[in-house]
Amino acid sequence: MRNAPTDPLPLAQALIRCPSVTPADAGALGVLEAALRPLGFTCHRMRFGETENLFARRGTEGPHFCYAGHTDVVPPGGQGWTDDPFAATVRDGVLFGRGACDMKGGIAAFLAGLTDYLAANPNPPGSISLLITGDEEGPAKDGTVRVLEWMQERGEIPDMALVGEPTSRARLGDIVKVGRRGSMTAYITLFGTQGHSAYPQRADNPIHRLVRVLHRLTAAPIDQGSEFFEPTTLQVTGFDVGNAANNVIPGEARAMLNIRFNDLHTSASLTEHLHAALRAEESRYEMRIDCSGESFLTSPGSFVDALKRAVERQAGATPALDTGGGTSDARFLARYCPVAELGGVGATMHKADESVPVAELRDLAALYRAVLEECLG
Amino acid sequence: MRNAPTDPLPLAQALIRCPSVTPADAGALGVLEAALRPLGFTCHRMRFGETENLFARRGTEGPHFCYAGHTDVVPPGGQGWTDDPFAATVRDGVLFGRGACDMKGGIAAFLAGLTDYLAANPNPPGSISLLITGDEEGPAKDGTVRVLEWMQERGEIPDMALVGEPTSRARLGDIVKVGRRGSMTAYITLFGTQGHSAYPQRADNPIHRLVRVLHRLTAAPIDQGSEFFEPTTLQVTGFDVGNAANNVIPGEARAMLNIRFNDLHTSASLTEHLHAALRAEESRYEMRIDCSGESFLTSPGSFVDALKRAVERQAGATPALDTGGGTSDARFLARYCPVAELGGVGATMHKADESVPVAELRDLAALYRAVLEECLG
Ligand SMILES: [Zn+2]
Ligand SMILES: [Zn+2]
Repeated sequence: MRNAPTDPLPLAQALIRCPSVTPADAGALGVLEAALRPLGFTCHRMRFGETENLFARRGTEGPHFCYAGHTDVVPPGGQGWTDDPFAATVRDGVLFGRGACDMKGGIAAFLAGLTDYLAANPNPPGSISLLITGDEEGPAKDGTVRVLEWMQERGEIPDMALVGEPTSRARLGDIVKVGRRGSMTAYITLFGTQGHSAYPQRADNPIHRLVRVLHRLTAAPIDQGSEFFEPTTLQVTGFDVGNAANNVIPGEARAMLNIRFNDLHTSASLTEHLHAALRAEESRYEMRIDCSGESFLTSPGSFVDALKRAVERQAGATPALDTGGGTSDARFLARYCPVAELGGVGATMHKADESVPVAELRDLAALYRAVLEECLG
Repeated sequence: MRNAPTDPLPLAQALIRCPSVTPADAGALGVLEAALRPLGFTCHRMRFGETENLFARRGTEGPHFCYAGHTDVVPPGGQGWTDDPFAATVRDGVLFGRGACDMKGGIAAFLAGLTDYLAANPNPPGSISLLITGDEEGPAKDGTVRVLEWMQERGEIPDMALVGEPTSRARLGDIVKVGRRGSMTAYITLFGTQGHSAYPQRADNPIHRLVRVLHRLTAAPIDQGSEFFEPTTLQVTGFDVGNAANNVIPGEARAMLNIRFNDLHTSASLTEHLHAALRAEESRYEMRIDCSGESFLTSPGSFVDALKRAVERQAGATPALDTGGGTSDARFLARYCPVAELGGVGATMHKADESVPVAELRDLAALYRAVLEECLG
């Protein structure tokens, strides 16, 4: 028989009460360390720039399962909160506070599930680690990226990583994210020849050329999607000239494009796609590309199968494998090992009165225990 | 035998020495009045707003020939002048000064030609008038437009009008302008639905729609030109969104278009053309139209034939009938009577060191005398 499961609520409240708005730690990682040490974890605190990070591991053997997450939160914002956003108030069975669902509640649930798993399996096979950063909500330069470099140097790259972001859509476990689209932004300046609008033959209108380029790029979809991905989307998010004189043909025009791309493309192949559309004008242009993450996909296999089994056992339904939504630190882990994302329902993330039902936290703790059982045995 | 022709140079210098930068008159119209009264002209000075205007007429019968022009000048600008721009210096047979070619030199040439014509024809048939304004280079609201209204009230609308702008291209009289293109500007705002670039299906990108509208409008020429006109041109002179966030689909996008149109169109027909291109998007939009002048054409006939004969006699070559270039006050006269433009070479107009060869001024005076002979007999 099993003991009564560990309640994740107290730890979730302790974490929320640390006002760890990026890049502040405000004691949050210390709360985690204090919970992990008694479970046999070796803790490494790493400060990069202004960011505090924690890597904690129990065991040295493979398979190595890593849970990844962040203790930093977005600012509460000035308005709309019923309670102090850092008070961790429970009302009518719901825990309120900044980070309740994204993702201090998730981390507390993992700790509770982990505690119960280790109680039942004092000598589990392989090893378990946690990679917790303090800048997921910020520039994401001094967090997961840097810790992974440190882990690689020490030979601590895991065999599988689970990111605990609140990826469930309507019901806990309805979605397992097995990839993310890539995201890149292009900043284009196209040069023409300035002139008077009464004599367009003596000028070369860069707006007309840029309109043609953008029409070429937006007239048809870039692809139709792939097995696990929605179609790639290209959105022109800026077009500016800054000319106030109605009778002046300006000398240059600027556009900004954001592309969310699936596994049929890389930022390099799409950059070439943009260059080809621009080259067709035979005009001088400049283009700067800022890629915030390549697309990635963890193909179905033993790790994804284990997560599906855990969800089926706990939630009684098969999760959908999904790759939608914005970016997360999973894009950095994907460079090293299979990675998937499974967490609570994120409906209130980044909003006022962010909250999670206490019952959902407890279900999530049980789900994470099942994940450990399925992934490690 | 003829007497020695009247020299236009002293009057041109007297006019240039009045620093009549729009809307200042600085005594310029008084100089003209003093020259016209001894020739038998009745002078009417009219002030509308800040603008001084002059209407002077000799005779009351038809046919009524009107010479139209302006004594105001554009500012000299700070740089690039060899001499004081209002000193009317003559060096190496060239008269320098702001207004030398646009168009105080032209007015002085007309006065000289008129003086000689009246000396040879003391009782000419019909009547001769001058409509001289002080705001052609400015907003053109309180000048020719208002004087024409005053003339219409008094029954003084001419049978033909010659605008003395410096329309010659390379050689005096190589061009007679018999019309002008119209000019209109459209200010368009197209509305979409703001959103996140990761979820374009929940937004409606107004930039994409405006790009389609502008592509529709610029992909093909609007027409191929007509007998006396070049093709209509449409130039997008502005496109602005003002969105700095690369991941935000903005809620609206703005464009500015300038159209120079020939006699195949009116501002109303082109406004409908723009509406049709916009309606194809089925988006909400706003459009404001500012038409600074409809196109007009003085069809070949007795007036244009008389001008051609005058040029052929004086310049020894047949002028080309032309409708190119920017707008002038001819667009206002065209609402009332046949109008054409014939003047000196405008190569230096609005520039530093604006100038006219003294010999060209004298040739222009002789040409205007021939014009009066051909138009009135
Ligand atoms: Zn998060
Ligand atoms: Zn002028």
